[in-house]
Amino acid sequence: MSSVLLTLNAGSSSLKFAVFAAQGDVPLATGLADRIGANGTITLRDGKGDTVPQAGAADVSSHQAALLSILGQLRARLGELDVAAVGHRIVHGGISFVAPTLLDANTLQALEALVPFAPLHQPHNLAGVRAAIAAFPKARQVACFDTAFHRNHPFVNDTFALPRVFYEKGVRRYGFHGLSYEFIASELHRIAPRLAEGRVIVAHLGNGASVCALHHGRSIASTMGFTALDGLPMGTRCGQLDPGVVLYLMDQEKLSAAQISDLLYKHSGLLGLSGLSNDMRELEAAGTPEAAQAIDYFVFRVQREFGAMAAALGGVDAIVFCGGIGENAKAIRARVCERLAWMGVELDHARNSQNALVVSSELSRAQVMVIKTNEELVIARALRGFN
Amino acid sequence: MSSVLLTLNAGSSSLKFAVFAAQGDVPLATGLADRIGANGTITLRDGKGDTVPQAGAADVSSHQAALLSILGQLRARLGELDVAAVGHRIVHGGISFVAPTLLDANTLQALEALVPFAPLHQPHNLAGVRAAIAAFPKARQVACFDTAFHRNHPFVNDTFALPRVFYEKGVRRYGFHGLSYEFIASELHRIAPRLAEGRVIVAHLGNGASVCALHHGRSIASTMGFTALDGLPMGTRCGQLDPGVVLYLMDQEKLSAAQISDLLYKHSGLLGLSGLSNDMRELEAAGTPEAAQAIDYFVFRVQREFGAMAAALGGVDAIVFCGGIGENAKAIRARVCERLAWMGVELDHARNSQNALVVSSELSRAQVMVIKTNEELVIARALRGFN
Repeated sequence: MSSVLLTLNAGSSSLKFAVFAAQGDVPLATGLADRIGANGTITLRDGKGDTVPQAGAADVSSHQAALLSILGQLRARLGELDVAAVGHRIVHGGISFVAPTLLDANTLQALEALVPFAPLHQPHNLAGVRAAIAAFPKARQVACFDTAFHRNHPFVNDTFALPRVFYEKGVRRYGFHGLSYEFIASELHRIAPRLAEGRVIVAHLGNGASVCALHHGRSIASTMGFTALDGLPMGTRCGQLDPGVVLYLMDQEKLSAAQISDLLYKHSGLLGLSGLSNDMRELEAAGTPEAAQAIDYFVFRVQREFGAMAAALGGVDAIVFCGGIGENAKAIRARVCERLAWMGVELDHARNSQNALVVSSELSRAQVMVIKTNEELVIARALRGFN
Repeated sequence: MSSVLLTLNAGSSSLKFAVFAAQGDVPLATGLADRIGANGTITLRDGKGDTVPQAGAADVSSHQAALLSILGQLRARLGELDVAAVGHRIVHGGISFVAPTLLDANTLQALEALVPFAPLHQPHNLAGVRAAIAAFPKARQVACFDTAFHRNHPFVNDTFALPRVFYEKGVRRYGFHGLSYEFIASELHRIAPRLAEGRVIVAHLGNGASVCALHHGRSIASTMGFTALDGLPMGTRCGQLDPGVVLYLMDQEKLSAAQISDLLYKHSGLLGLSGLSNDMRELEAAGTPEAAQAIDYFVFRVQREFGAMAAALGGVDAIVFCGGIGENAKAIRARVCERLAWMGVELDHARNSQNALVVSSELSRAQVMVIKTNEELVIARALRGFN
């Protein structure tokens, strides 16, 4: 029976997973349980990312049932498995959780207390933890935080200009996508150690999107703030918004907090501006004026935040694109970079169209790179750290 | 009897004014009626800005009484006056008002309809208009808008990533301090016409603060958005804030819209962070760790928005500082510029300490200038345009 590590990323009705052996960067399998509680399905992939056929029926009536079904599928494919440890992606670690943390009754309680900081995400993450404890009672359960990588921001990047009492209460600019940025920092250190010491802007552009400023491989600033709403526009999230707009929605439109939250998290961003889709590929294919304007807006806000992050770094030596859009949307990368000559960026269009590792020209003052991010591997490494 | 032009800037309990002759850039007098309705006073200055003694007692029980007292003071000093036209600084012109506008019953009503967009400022501006109509019924009354100079922003700088219906309703990035930026643009065109055609960042840094990107002398972007809350931290206003923080204040702190508005407009910014004062001079003198952190935050956010505006412009040829802090706070200017070498800025510390017109070094790739702004003159010029 082989001992394996399981990584989990639990959403409201989804469960993303990967299985790793005790050693090695390539997972044995990855997959997704989708539409949990409804008419859900499980998708299983091998270490190369190719979908593989499943054995028997899947029960995805709950997170816990889905987990047991996933384990059954994995056993049918990989043989008897001993899940030695489960690593959980947890969106919010607050002020205190600055590194992967063993989950027990005390730490779970402390993470429950952070639900008000991320009411739409943290409860689902913790439901995943509870399902995993029930399904694998003997496994070590470890929390890996999307905020931890950003916890050493200087004060000017950690605070809002509110009365101090709010800072003390934890109303801070946490930043998210920390597992992704940690992977990019480690990968950059591996393939370009000198560049990794410099001033690096990383753009994690997916359905969620943010930009991070790395110096000496550490995060010093992020476009995301207290919640995952701030900064860049996203698939359905608004990104940067004048707080006066929220006051207007309360005062003039008479919307409740729940209605405003629903509007800003689920109906804004690319979807809201295009009136069409939250999916960049669909917008690129659509060709409507509104879809084009939504893409224009996204591109401009990325450029704008690159300028802001360059200011935080005092200049830029390299830019890294990652995430679904960052890794694959060539036209978006090209459009972002075409107005960055002023910060020393010159794109090589042939390389860019191949999604090459380096997509800047040989004479570009700042390197531009495309690196496939790997949050699961960061979690697996954290689990190994607890062995 | 000489015909004069009067400019007015009416706040909740204040009335700033200037008197101009039919021609000339130097006002005959300027002044301020303060604490109107309470135990207020009038301060009168000559064209050079020196305080002059007043004749008789002042009645500042209302805006209208204050206006009549001001006129009395001016007559005692300048002789019999015929106020031919009154120009009003109006914070919000919405989508439609893109130029100075003659005030009549219809236009006043249209401006009333914009109160929801600027509930803390617009009503006081309009109270000033009504007081002036009552005090000078035969004078032309003209509205000059803080939003008008920004009304040709490209769509990406005019919208938020919300559902389209909000854009149509007027939830847009208006930008403010437009009269100040219009003056700077005209002054730059006068003293450095070639530079004025280029990519210019203007920082209006006072108790209110924003940054504007000028190209070919026209505004293409501003850090202020829908309201005067957004962008840079200010004396008591928060500046950029994650909309999730407002949701948190509603949901977790159970604050009403009025309480949140009070918090973000009146108790945040430099005052909130320092716990001490909204006045940069007091913070510079205080030397407490909190005051130092408030200044650090202000400086960093200015640098960050310079980076963002440079991205909007595709680089930068000149930076102009104006407003109370921008014109006078040498140490703040020096600190902002010391980390802008990456965008071609090199300060001349001797010139900077003299508040010289050009404070960058001769070899600086981007020019850095200090220009005293003059919103009153922009209003006076608009009045002359109606003659």
